Amino acid sequence: MAENLLIVHGGGPTAVLNASLYGAVMEAKESGKLQHIYGADNGTGGFLEEKLIELEKIPQEKLDLLLQTPGTAIGTSRDPIWQEDYEKLADIAEKRQIKYILFNGGNGTMDTCGKLHETCVRRNLDVRVMGIPKTTDNDIAVTDHSPGFGSAARYIAACTQELCADVRSLPIHVVVMEASGRNAGWITAASALAGEAGYAPDLIYLPERAFDEEKFLADVEKLLKKKSGIVVVASEGLADKEGKPVVKPVFKTDRATYFGDVSSHLANLVIQKLGYKARGEKPGLLGRASIGLQSPVDREEAIRAGREACKAALAGESGKMVAFRRTSDDPYQMETFLADIREVMMYEKKMPDAFINEEGNGVTQEFIQWCRPLIGEELPQMASFNTEKPGRE
Amino acid sequence: MAENLLIVHGGGPTAVLNASLYGAVMEAKESGKLQHIYGADNGTGGFLEEKLIELEKIPQEKLDLLLQTPGTAIGTSRDPIWQEDYEKLADIAEKRQIKYILFNGGNGTMDTCGKLHETCVRRNLDVRVMGIPKTTDNDIAVTDHSPGFGSAARYIAACTQELCADVRSLPIHVVVMEASGRNAGWITAASALAGEAGYAPDLIYLPERAFDEEKFLADVEKLLKKKSGIVVVASEGLADKEGKPVVKPVFKTDRATYFGDVSSHLANLVIQKLGYKARGEKPGLLGRASIGLQSPVDREEAIRAGREACKAALAGESGKMVAFRRTSDDPYQMETFLADIREVMMYEKKMPDAFINEEGNGVTQEFIQWCRPLIGEELPQMASFNTEKPGRE
Repeated sequence: MAENLLIVHGGGPTAVLNASLYGAVMEAKESGKLQHIYGADNGTGGFLEEKLIELEKIPQEKLDLLLQTPGTAIGTSRDPIWQEDYEKLADIAEKRQIKYILFNGGNGTMDTCGKLHETCVRRNLDVRVMGIPKTTDNDIAVTDHSPGFGSAARYIAACTQELCADVRSLPIHVVVMEASGRNAGWITAASALAGEAGYAPDLIYLPERAFDEEKFLADVEKLLKKKSGIVVVASEGLADKEGKPVVKPVFKTDRATYFGDVSSHLANLVIQKLGYKARGEKPGLLGRASIGLQSPVDREEAIRAGREACKAALAGESGKMVAFRRTSDDPYQMETFLADIREVMMYEKKMPDAFINEEGNGVTQEFIQWCRPLIGEELPQMASFNTEKPGRE
Repeated sequence: MAENLLIVHGGGPTAVLNASLYGAVMEAKESGKLQHIYGADNGTGGFLEEKLIELEKIPQEKLDLLLQTPGTAIGTSRDPIWQEDYEKLADIAEKRQIKYILFNGGNGTMDTCGKLHETCVRRNLDVRVMGIPKTTDNDIAVTDHSPGFGSAARYIAACTQELCADVRSLPIHVVVMEASGRNAGWITAASALAGEAGYAPDLIYLPERAFDEEKFLADVEKLLKKKSGIVVVASEGLADKEGKPVVKPVFKTDRATYFGDVSSHLANLVIQKLGYKARGEKPGLLGRASIGLQSPVDREEAIRAGREACKAALAGESGKMVAFRRTSDDPYQMETFLADIREVMMYEKKMPDAFINEEGNGVTQEFIQWCRPLIGEELPQMASFNTEKPGRE
């Protein structure tokens, strides 16, 4: 009987989601035991509609392009999955002789993955369901980190360095850059890695700490007395001590609330309350789509996670997610293991206290040491010959 | 008698401002006839205070880093220059035996350059003053284009491609990316070059055309009937037919007015008036500071402009700016010439009508052909296997 494999993507893309797809497809091809290697066309929705892409027919030179393609080449979705859908997905798997299903995604997708696994077990179907972790925000539990984060971290660190180099040469007082990660500050924190090249951001505000407007303005004003161009990196999800977002909602529908940008909000505070020139930048989606700033370490780990999930499924594993365990910081060494999917489902991992400085406006050396290997090669050295402009009284 | 040369930077940096500095310093070193190669520490302000960096003492390996450093390694300024300042600058040149002065900057800096040249001529001083063009916005007259623009163009084109790849795989309806260039749309227009790789933006709005909110919403709605994820690129300086900026001023001082972001403004319009999900991205300063997305053509031309300005000054020229003349589009060929600085001073070059489409929401093939060689090597090929999601009724 023919055996087929299906890969499903869920949630927002990362810079290396396609690299995991590449790893899974290559492993599947090399196994020699599969008739079809399907990709669900645009995520679970495509799976439900039986819209399956025959990835085994894609020429190798096109598969190779996956490593330099952001987004996801087979699409993804954020469509909600209802209980009856799981029965339908299991029916489709049975009908199309899909014996192996790999879900590549974040917390929500791992939830789907776990529930489909349970459905197949309950119905006594011979279908193996495995998870591949994926997130820019690094909020998946159990694993040391997830593919996608290293590239988002390299992006924000490199941009911070470049922004600092710019601001040092033509001080415009305050630049606030907004970083992704509404509830978890991992990406925002990674801006500190620009310090290694001598271009650390001046202030970092994480969603793990209540944002205090007075303290922020005091922090900025204090720095502006010493120097003239300062760079602040702030999470898109900053909230006050009551948990209320610092930016006002722009619009509310019954499905979602849309908020203004933290970057321009903080810049406007500096302009209006302190009278200094300020501006906000918000690379937003560009931070998860940059191929030039992909972390080579992240890319390799993404390929590996895809391969390992495929290998485990073919070996009979099910209801598990490939996870990373760090065995050494320096030299950086990482091994994979299989985590029970029930430990991962819908749990959101935030930054531990040990990674955040006491004042709540920066990170600790411990965080930098943890994060450093994930962004890959060193940031470029830069030249600076001018004197730093002193601040205003 | 010793002869010295001084390089002064003015206005906002570009990704290759330091490459022009590199070119000028290398030419000056190789001439063998200069005792000091000075850099004004933080622009004209440093010149006025006689804060001069001795660039001849910088080791070659540090000079080489200039090619990968954004901002400006000797600083720059936007301080206003008054009439009495020119006399003072001439005094300093005389006193410090500075016989050659190179101003690297945009329209405002060329104005300073021209006025200092006139002052030296009037006072019969043997000082040669030359201009090196620099702008991300490409708004300097007489020259085909200016160093700095090609890199800003490559940045926006690459980001547009990456954004389109992301949005195609997980449609979030509408993403609006804001591009720099308040009065001239050159950078915004360059987003169209992503089309070469198959990832053209859906709509482009330039400051050369009056922005009509109704027309914008109709453009977006029409497209959303056909497809589900669309990318809009809009200039930061959009204004209505009365010339009023589309974004409200956030704060006014007697020196400046601060405006909100066009990107979030347009995204909010789509959410509030059409009821579709939308978001705005604003890379802002990152677009002029990215080294990874530097255009190699731009970098080479920046070096060349620096060298030519130095060479011309040493040969006795003064009151001129190095300019580019295109002799062929395909293969791209460019030659430099010296333009009279009076033709350049304070004149702002906007996009000609022939480069803008009839509807005012895109560019022409003629623009693409003109702009194409400036961004350097082709954008990367990418993989896409999913079907495009249809739009909503």
